[in-house]
Amino acid sequence: MFESTFSETTRRDWTDDGGAGGDADATTRIATVGCGNYARSVSIPAMERGEYAAPTVVVSGDPEKRARLADEFDVTAIGYDEYDAGVASDEYDAVYVATPNRLHLPHVETAAGHGKHVICEKPLEATVERAERLVAACDDAGVRLMTAYRMQTDPVMRRLREFVAAGGIGDLQRASGDFTFPVLGGDAGPDQWRLDGRLAGGGALYDVGVYPLNTARFLAGDDPVAVSATTRSPDPAFDGVDQHVDFRVEFGAASGAGDGDADDIDGAGPVDGGGWVGNFSASFSGHPNTSLELLGSDGRIAVRSAFQPGADREVTVETSEGTVELADAGADETVEEFDYFAHAVATGGDIEPDGSDGLVDMRALAAAQESARTGGRVEL
Amino acid sequence: MFESTFSETTRRDWTDDGGAGGDADATTRIATVGCGNYARSVSIPAMERGEYAAPTVVVSGDPEKRARLADEFDVTAIGYDEYDAGVASDEYDAVYVATPNRLHLPHVETAAGHGKHVICEKPLEATVERAERLVAACDDAGVRLMTAYRMQTDPVMRRLREFVAAGGIGDLQRASGDFTFPVLGGDAGPDQWRLDGRLAGGGALYDVGVYPLNTARFLAGDDPVAVSATTRSPDPAFDGVDQHVDFRVEFGAASGAGDGDADDIDGAGPVDGGGWVGNFSASFSGHPNTSLELLGSDGRIAVRSAFQPGADREVTVETSEGTVELADAGADETVEEFDYFAHAVATGGDIEPDGSDGLVDMRALAAAQESARTGGRVEL
Repeated sequence: MFESTFSETTRRDWTDDGGAGGDADATTRIATVGCGNYARSVSIPAMERGEYAAPTVVVSGDPEKRARLADEFDVTAIGYDEYDAGVASDEYDAVYVATPNRLHLPHVETAAGHGKHVICEKPLEATVERAERLVAACDDAGVRLMTAYRMQTDPVMRRLREFVAAGGIGDLQRASGDFTFPVLGGDAGPDQWRLDGRLAGGGALYDVGVYPLNTARFLAGDDPVAVSATTRSPDPAFDGVDQHVDFRVEFGAASGAGDGDADDIDGAGPVDGGGWVGNFSASFSGHPNTSLELLGSDGRIAVRSAFQPGADREVTVETSEGTVELADAGADETVEEFDYFAHAVATGGDIEPDGSDGLVDMRALAAAQESARTGGRVEL
Repeated sequence: MFESTFSETTRRDWTDDGGAGGDADATTRIATVGCGNYARSVSIPAMERGEYAAPTVVVSGDPEKRARLADEFDVTAIGYDEYDAGVASDEYDAVYVATPNRLHLPHVETAAGHGKHVICEKPLEATVERAERLVAACDDAGVRLMTAYRMQTDPVMRRLREFVAAGGIGDLQRASGDFTFPVLGGDAGPDQWRLDGRLAGGGALYDVGVYPLNTARFLAGDDPVAVSATTRSPDPAFDGVDQHVDFRVEFGAASGAGDGDADDIDGAGPVDGGGWVGNFSASFSGHPNTSLELLGSDGRIAVRSAFQPGADREVTVETSEGTVELADAGADETVEEFDYFAHAVATGGDIEPDGSDGLVDMRALAAAQESARTGGRVEL
């Protein structure tokens, strides 16, 4: 099982599907709304390197930035009023929303109003209610929506999911994962939206805690049933948001907690009646760390550099059959992410990290915040 | 800092102390009360290999086993009635109690009544109240008591503690650890005291969950202030005890949660006002796994094979100065454990894993059980 699973850590299984008959060679042209550092340095370059995606428009409120980006990426650069008015809307098929979380909703509504498909950064919004409206706006307009969970398109993670689903580590018993991201490192000071609770919805929990949660859900094919959490913010720079969060997520039996979505991945996983538990954590300060582990009845999977953008994942798979170590495995998951979205839009193919998937996490994140406030376990 | 810390992974720092003037070359003769598999195959052989400890007496209820052990270890073998009556009490200076947890108290009381020092297996007893009586019995009789936390005598762990205390990973932010021990593996069937909630006090939490908890406390030099836990027992073999437990332990500020003991290690650690959190787990079934990690503001320590008896710890230390990997490091921590105890008894030297230390964990374990019942966070 090892060999068939791990010999193909760059394979794009989602091109096998063929889609519903669309043009698999078509390019999906993408307008980027919100041109912060991550969009400029990671996302737009990933679209440029992609096979199916192409950046054609950028939306920014800063005229100087618009001029710079137009030149750097050879794109049409417009302001927010122009975006709202539909300027250049014939130059893009889809919109990538990368603004602060609380601004996702209006920009997605605008995209949907223009009949454009949407790939929206995680978490979907700053509150569950706003995220639900965001999803409804896309549903109502009949446009596709992808939550930008790049780890779900990482070929290493996709092979690991297949391995878990095939029973490679037996029944899943436990997951653990951490994303410690020193948000004040480098050039970034405290005057950023990630430290604004209203704009971001939360601190480390919302910005990076969603990675171990969503990736474990993806690997296991299951949804949360209860959450318990604690947060702390000893550094005054993090007043109003969680600097550190530790949250424990209970996952139910296979019969249980699906979100009811048609493409729900519940039941794909090997979860037995006993359920399993995820012990997750995230921090906005500290020694940089991204890790994910799954422990099963018959094996263990550990991933180091699990969520670091563009990093080579270091994977250890231990079972009774032996131990496999993979280093330098995989492909750039951000290129994969935009190509996955672009290909699905062009062909009508499946989008697994859809609005429902994003909403499951929004509800879990909100439950974690409630638990941290009350000290109690919050059922979903 | 790396070199001075990790070049001495077999050093017995506790022989430096000299003690209160006792005979550092004396041998402490130990009677073993309760001769289950662990005592026979690990503990008594460790005493035999030790420099300061010697097994001289065994106490067993089984005449055939007594005969076999007397022959195998060249010791005096007596029954429980004889132990209670003081038979052969001039042949031992101290008692190692390795019975089921709920029988620790009467056997420790007997030892204290004979004026013998005690090393008692972890957890101290099956309930907090009984553990408190056990500690009081030793205090009242003026005999030394060590809780048998073998990891505290593992030289690798002792060097890591020094490294943490010296600020090697900055301020501690988070610990995580797991001990998954397939208790029904090998020859052991379901008819064993570890699966009897009354005799054991709890399941995986009490038997193996105490390892990541106590070891993280030891490395950080801090005590818990609150606990939140969830347990599950999907396999009917584990009815009445926790098959799986996940527990989150909050540790307070340095000003905070000491147990008031004179040799309390509070304040030795670099914990800032924000406290830190331990995410711990344990299981009585599943792929065998023992691990411990500490994440700080400036570094990370990861230990694989962290709690496996006699295993070579695999240690990774990551800081801004670089990464060090230690394999095959250390000494047999069970030999260290009995020699540490024997040396302290002979010299009047310090016993850090004392009764107070064991009680801190008993209270945390009981709080975890209460939290698992109620769903709430339990303060200590």
